Amino acid sequence: MARTLITGGLVITAADELHADVLVDGGRVVALATHGSHGWTADRVIDAAQKYVVPGGVDAHTHMEMPFGGTFASDTFETGTRAAAWGGTTTIVDFAIQSKGGSLGEGLDAWHEKADGRCAVDYAFHMIMSDVHESSLREMDSLVSAGVSSFKLFTAYPGVFFSDDGQILRAMQRAASNGGLVMAHAENGLAIDVLVEQALARGERDPRHHGEVRKALLEAEATHRVIKLSQVAGAPLYVVHVSAREAVAELARARHEGLPVFGETCPQYLFLSTENLAEPGFEGAKYVCSTPLRPKEHQEALWRGLRTNELQVVSTDHCPFCFKGQKELGRADFSKIPNGLPGVETRMDLLHQAVVEGRISRRRWIEIACATPARMFGLYPKKGTIAPGADADIVIYDPHAEQTLSAATHHMNVDYSPYEGRQITGRVETVLLRGAPVIDGRVYVGNAGDGAYVPRGICQYLD
Amino acid sequence: MARTLITGGLVITAADELHADVLVDGGRVVALATHGSHGWTADRVIDAAQKYVVPGGVDAHTHMEMPFGGTFASDTFETGTRAAAWGGTTTIVDFAIQSKGGSLGEGLDAWHEKADGRCAVDYAFHMIMSDVHESSLREMDSLVSAGVSSFKLFTAYPGVFFSDDGQILRAMQRAASNGGLVMAHAENGLAIDVLVEQALARGERDPRHHGEVRKALLEAEATHRVIKLSQVAGAPLYVVHVSAREAVAELARARHEGLPVFGETCPQYLFLSTENLAEPGFEGAKYVCSTPLRPKEHQEALWRGLRTNELQVVSTDHCPFCFKGQKELGRADFSKIPNGLPGVETRMDLLHQAVVEGRISRRRWIEIACATPARMFGLYPKKGTIAPGADADIVIYDPHAEQTLSAATHHMNVDYSPYEGRQITGRVETVLLRGAPVIDGRVYVGNAGDGAYVPRGICQYLD
Amino acid sequence: MARTLITGGLVITAADELHADVLVDGGRVVALATHGSHGWTADRVIDAAQKYVVPGGVDAHTHMEMPFGGTFASDTFETGTRAAAWGGTTTIVDFAIQSKGGSLGEGLDAWHEKADGRCAVDYAFHMIMSDVHESSLREMDSLVSAGVSSFKLFTAYPGVFFSDDGQILRAMQRAASNGGLVMAHAENGLAIDVLVEQALARGERDPRHHGEVRKALLEAEATHRVIKLSQVAGAPLYVVHVSAREAVAELARARHEGLPVFGETCPQYLFLSTENLAEPGFEGAKYVCSTPLRPKEHQEALWRGLRTNELQVVSTDHCPFCFKGQKELGRADFSKIPNGLPGVETRMDLLHQAVVEGRISRRRWIEIACATPARMFGLYPKKGTIAPGADADIVIYDPHAEQTLSAATHHMNVDYSPYEGRQITGRVETVLLRGAPVIDGRVYVGNAGDGAYVPRGICQYLD
Amino acid sequence: MARTLITGGLVITAADELHADVLVDGGRVVALATHGSHGWTADRVIDAAQKYVVPGGVDAHTHMEMPFGGTFASDTFETGTRAAAWGGTTTIVDFAIQSKGGSLGEGLDAWHEKADGRCAVDYAFHMIMSDVHESSLREMDSLVSAGVSSFKLFTAYPGVFFSDDGQILRAMQRAASNGGLVMAHAENGLAIDVLVEQALARGERDPRHHGEVRKALLEAEATHRVIKLSQVAGAPLYVVHVSAREAVAELARARHEGLPVFGETCPQYLFLSTENLAEPGFEGAKYVCSTPLRPKEHQEALWRGLRTNELQVVSTDHCPFCFKGQKELGRADFSKIPNGLPGVETRMDLLHQAVVEGRISRRRWIEIACATPARMFGLYPKKGTIAPGADADIVIYDPHAEQTLSAATHHMNVDYSPYEGRQITGRVETVLLRGAPVIDGRVYVGNAGDGAYVPRGICQYLD
Repeated sequence: MARTLITGGLVITAADELHADVLVDGGRVVALATHGSHGWTADRVIDAAQKYVVPGGVDAHTHMEMPFGGTFASDTFETGTRAAAWGGTTTIVDFAIQSKGGSLGEGLDAWHEKADGRCAVDYAFHMIMSDVHESSLREMDSLVSAGVSSFKLFTAYPGVFFSDDGQILRAMQRAASNGGLVMAHAENGLAIDVLVEQALARGERDPRHHGEVRKALLEAEATHRVIKLSQVAGAPLYVVHVSAREAVAELARARHEGLPVFGETCPQYLFLSTENLAEPGFEGAKYVCSTPLRPKEHQEALWRGLRTNELQVVSTDHCPFCFKGQKELGRADFSKIPNGLPGVETRMDLLHQAVVEGRISRRRWIEIACATPARMFGLYPKKGTIAPGADADIVIYDPHAEQTLSAATHHMNVDYSPYEGRQITGRVETVLLRGAPVIDGRVYVGNAGDGAYVPRGICQYLD
Repeated sequence: MARTLITGGLVITAADELHADVLVDGGRVVALATHGSHGWTADRVIDAAQKYVVPGGVDAHTHMEMPFGGTFASDTFETGTRAAAWGGTTTIVDFAIQSKGGSLGEGLDAWHEKADGRCAVDYAFHMIMSDVHESSLREMDSLVSAGVSSFKLFTAYPGVFFSDDGQILRAMQRAASNGGLVMAHAENGLAIDVLVEQALARGERDPRHHGEVRKALLEAEATHRVIKLSQVAGAPLYVVHVSAREAVAELARARHEGLPVFGETCPQYLFLSTENLAEPGFEGAKYVCSTPLRPKEHQEALWRGLRTNELQVVSTDHCPFCFKGQKELGRADFSKIPNGLPGVETRMDLLHQAVVEGRISRRRWIEIACATPARMFGLYPKKGTIAPGADADIVIYDPHAEQTLSAATHHMNVDYSPYEGRQITGRVETVLLRGAPVIDGRVYVGNAGDGAYVPRGICQYLD
Repeated sequence: MARTLITGGLVITAADELHADVLVDGGRVVALATHGSHGWTADRVIDAAQKYVVPGGVDAHTHMEMPFGGTFASDTFETGTRAAAWGGTTTIVDFAIQSKGGSLGEGLDAWHEKADGRCAVDYAFHMIMSDVHESSLREMDSLVSAGVSSFKLFTAYPGVFFSDDGQILRAMQRAASNGGLVMAHAENGLAIDVLVEQALARGERDPRHHGEVRKALLEAEATHRVIKLSQVAGAPLYVVHVSAREAVAELARARHEGLPVFGETCPQYLFLSTENLAEPGFEGAKYVCSTPLRPKEHQEALWRGLRTNELQVVSTDHCPFCFKGQKELGRADFSKIPNGLPGVETRMDLLHQAVVEGRISRRRWIEIACATPARMFGLYPKKGTIAPGADADIVIYDPHAEQTLSAATHHMNVDYSPYEGRQITGRVETVLLRGAPVIDGRVYVGNAGDGAYVPRGICQYLD
Repeated sequence: MARTLITGGLVITAADELHADVLVDGGRVVALATHGSHGWTADRVIDAAQKYVVPGGVDAHTHMEMPFGGTFASDTFETGTRAAAWGGTTTIVDFAIQSKGGSLGEGLDAWHEKADGRCAVDYAFHMIMSDVHESSLREMDSLVSAGVSSFKLFTAYPGVFFSDDGQILRAMQRAASNGGLVMAHAENGLAIDVLVEQALARGERDPRHHGEVRKALLEAEATHRVIKLSQVAGAPLYVVHVSAREAVAELARARHEGLPVFGETCPQYLFLSTENLAEPGFEGAKYVCSTPLRPKEHQEALWRGLRTNELQVVSTDHCPFCFKGQKELGRADFSKIPNGLPGVETRMDLLHQAVVEGRISRRRWIEIACATPARMFGLYPKKGTIAPGADADIVIYDPHAEQTLSAATHHMNVDYSPYEGRQITGRVETVLLRGAPVIDGRVYVGNAGDGAYVPRGICQYLD
């Protein structure tokens, strides 16, 4: 494999910013050194002067080809991971799904089949548990050993993914003993379903009602509940897609008490709001996801949470559905709109925009987008940093380039962009995956199948 | 009806302590006046010098003859209300039960039948909703109109009284519109059932395990949950038998935010602890109730909550089961021990003991035991105070008498006392019910049927 | 003294609302009775049908003739207490002032001289300690015994009333041992003086800058500080004129911990805001007081604090200065505007307006304006309630009358009204002071000297 | 300067743990590389197999030769920095002192003179401001520019270092404008002095009374106060030697609100307690420092604060006084015992012991002891990490060696050890300062004057 020297850039990791050269060999970073000759030869030299040299992004929450409400997320592993590469993300952790009545293993096998040989970047799996019982609990142990060390449980979606509190407690207890990490979608689905039914009965059928029935208080409630259940189980907890400031407050309270509780938010909650959901003419459907977008004032709490480390990770919950033919399934009934937004391609850029706007530091950008998700899900230091021994997943990032986000130019397989027309500063220029270029000077040079499956270790915040 | 003059005592209400004479006529208080002749004549004059003249107690939480775990609470309305009278309580609010598949009305009728013509003191009803659906929700409106204005829902006891969060939300919404008050037994029953099963599987079968599996954190969780559901519904909430300091903290947090949320505790949580549950030789079974007794350090939080008005009411949750034949059902399995303790007779005395020990003031004693429960459940000022126009439910209380609590001397139909041998200061001497003596100088002079049913108005903290 | 019967009204106390007749004899209430003949004869019968019969107001915070910034508050004890009577207040507690270098006794004597024989309503005194040293600390004991049981210390006004934290601690320790209650004006005066100097240096000289330099955070800081000092001393604490929501939060936190900490607010903070301070053309000077008015959003926190009992008392801090000649002293420099607002006449009406608007209940109106201030400062049950044995300080209040607040019609000796033109519902009709009419059907029938000095007991929340 | 290769060790930084070789040249780290030959030649190769390779410690709080209570801290810059080297600390930040009436510059000059040419490791200065006035405020700007970017103010020690709240506010405002960082010793000194006087008057003269009069509540109070003052000033804040859990709670509250507030604790608060202060026979004097040691239960809160990043730095507050002749000054009066403990040599080892005991991770060890103090005080990445371009201040640490702490073997110039006899695991083996060995295989090979003065930039948490 080619020996590559990246020279003259500003290397940014979660911990450091340094002007250094990076030597890549055999797919790994072999050295960082002060700029200038250390007598190194290389097959290729990349001049990164005036550029950032950052770790490839780790998106810990994607749903490629996910079945939902009678349709499927519009990005396949092939199209979705290619878009990820374009956006500077070199590892995704997708969710395999246990079907009701099925085993975890069957679900995992099915997802392996979807992904195998098709991915442009590396990938790993979490497991969604839809059916907690003695046998699926036992299976958790073997999955942890096999590199699938996180398990998502839902207090939402009764009849689909929902588990009751007893089931959640059992899964948490098992995770406490086998090193797994329980992830929770925390909304009170039983209460929300009542509010949905009542809204529809009142004739409230527009997308904006999606945001109104899925109340922030019901996210806060479920967040508190899963925290208490995890405390009873003696297990760590990772709450996905936190959008309500009241939920952030619950996480903060728990962390202040010393509990191993973690929270993730997503760019859509940081940059979009219920104002988008209320866009006229069914446009709001483009912004339907769960947890839902919140009123603008919640954004400030999320940013503060990211700064104070009350929230640790920004993932995408990438789960795109085309406006035509998919989002339209809910024209007459907001509850039938497939839940999900595209995002795998725009995450690194939007978070860099937050750097530009002074919301977070450069190091924190890399921490929440690369290093912490890698640590959280047992991929560090292979992924998430630039250090001797790490996989050479490296992005050359131009912090001065300007771009306009648009469905016309993005590479995700979806017919709209939630950020259509937004001007931002900063752009991915070149992406190496284990030392090999995938994007090279804004040209895709990779292939389906370049991306490899990565078995994961356990969460590294628990040692 | 006899005209009675109570003269020379210290009249204590929730608001005042005054040396005053009380004139009773037609079953009601007609005047309070400074001591001495106002030219009043009376059929009977009670000399209350050196005594307290206090309102009859209002016990807002009793379960006479309640079916539980294949047996029945050992006090009938006849024996239980007679014991109440002995203890200075002149009104109880008992829980009628909707059976699964049955209507609220049927449940209420059944309880009326049990009580009618048998009670020694006045009584009213709450309604336990075991089956929330469209028809039972509609029935709530008529019950409120008919004087049954409070509805108890359970997050505990799956398969028996348990309602799911959607059902609880619906009941709260209905209460928000019809003026009803939802009462909640707040423990996460689904999680507790898992812990019970696991404890039994580990061979943990003694009564003390009852306290260990019903964790304080799971009371706190459910307390927070019903608070959030009530906030979504825009409804008030009354949490019964709060025993964990963490649950008090949740109530305090909600009240600080201005939510109409109320909390009740019981003497057993104030005076007993897990040390009792751990008494050897199955003695612990005498103390099995739910929520369970907590470690001693929780007592301080409860007393502080009573002083700071984070808790507003002390009721008994009177639900006695004899040690022999009833508690013994759980000899081999703590989960089969009928849940419940006797208390209707000892509440006023134990709380007076807290006055003696300096924990609460005399006025607060009357407030938490008489006035607030009456206001909370729409009985004030007919019940709960001594004022012109109020029912002449009056207790002449000797604050200096000493007594020893014991099953040998109590009047409840149960073969043990949880407070056996406890020495306390203060004793009921004479009790008037609507002007007529029920207890007269430590002699029971009443009759089954003296007590009348009292339809209630709505909670008076919501105006 | 005349025997008076008040008949047919709604008697409202902190605890009860009852349709009852009230019999007054010898200056005291001798009986409350259900409406109708109890065979009582009286010299005078007042028909209170359709009216409220409420206790005379207790205003626990007034400054008659107070010297401040080279001038004197414009109401004398004569004009100020007459205005109090017009407003339904029958007891004031004014602040005697120890001068620097002087003794407490000298200060008290001086204030007695000002008040003696001039008051239209009853009066008592707190003591302002301007000079804490061994001798003044010793004097505290004798003042408590003599009926002056509360002592105000200032963290504000360096060089005038300011005491340092060591002095405050010493006074609190003394109060802890002699039963006295320390009252605190809680603003960080040292920090504020820096901000004042800087504002003036920047040319910021208008009244609105008074509100900007006396920051809410500096009230919160000092509130927390005096709470901690009182906790160290083991002493109770009463914080005067709380205006910032952050300060309410500190009180709430302390009370939740069980500390004997109390808070007072004033009508100006409930009904006025920094918008008034910013009125053009020096009009803002009319609203200069300390603590200052706050932005409107603080009002909601104060009302919630009053409802949740995080604040217990509404007093006036009555300290009027005429716009002409007095407020004008600060035309060129906001820091020279005498600090203070009129209010002794309008308190009961403004709080009744809050009843009309649904912010508080009728009983809470009486509690915060009559009963609690009386209890807090050792005047209960002589003052603050209507009960057998209490002083017959009684207001017949017409809840339906409409009035417009105005300097043209008020009776305070000040040339403006902070509430000019405000329409409110409810008005005092008749006022009895110890049984004798002072206001009779909207006619002043009292005399200077009708009001008597009332020695006080100790705070009744500490037993 | 010698080219050195450190090979085969586990390199631990705040961010990473990696098996890597480190190449040092010209006093700086020039490269990190995967283990094995990169064709590098070196003058010296250090075999670090089985060892940790960690950044030299940064002790941000020392007081060499500090005058206190008529004597001087017993370590000079020469003896103290040599001990620091023995303990793996390669940079200290000491406190220059402005004398009352003197300028900042004079104080700084005096400290430069003490240190110049005598230090074994690198050193920098903070400035203690004892006299805040217009001229000293102006001087702050030039000190920041000159590399002294942090200023310590005291709410303690009235008459000595104490500044009043107005002075503190002014200093904070200046810091807000010039990039300086205010450090606060947060105890309410005025209140403490009252308690000291009273304790002595009661005959309480033993060392343990030092801990009793300097109450945790008075640390919490002052912590809250300086936080609020910094919030008013818009300035960041660093609170030194936090010892009370209540103070940690105040910091946590402020950080949750997003304020730039930081906290430091010291090993003595983590490992010692009031039990040591109460040791018999005046032994307690060895443990007299301010803030004082706290009861043991506070330790847990400090450790939790370190884990949750509510506390960010562990420094030593190294300020030793010999038991004989110095501590003994207070034999008859605890308030005369010089305040201070030795610690500069034992900090890295004690914190490693916390790693051994599972309290913190290895990376967190380096973060709180090296990286964060360097960032906090503008020394990063020159100091505090091992990265290309950083000063080659490197410690080879043997994690398996066992040692016993003792005055018999330590290198600090003080006649006792607060940790006498304590067995710990882990020991410094070799220390490089800018590439040159100071300790080499447990032999001191450095010289007075090897250590250089390091001008500092501004706090790096504020960008």
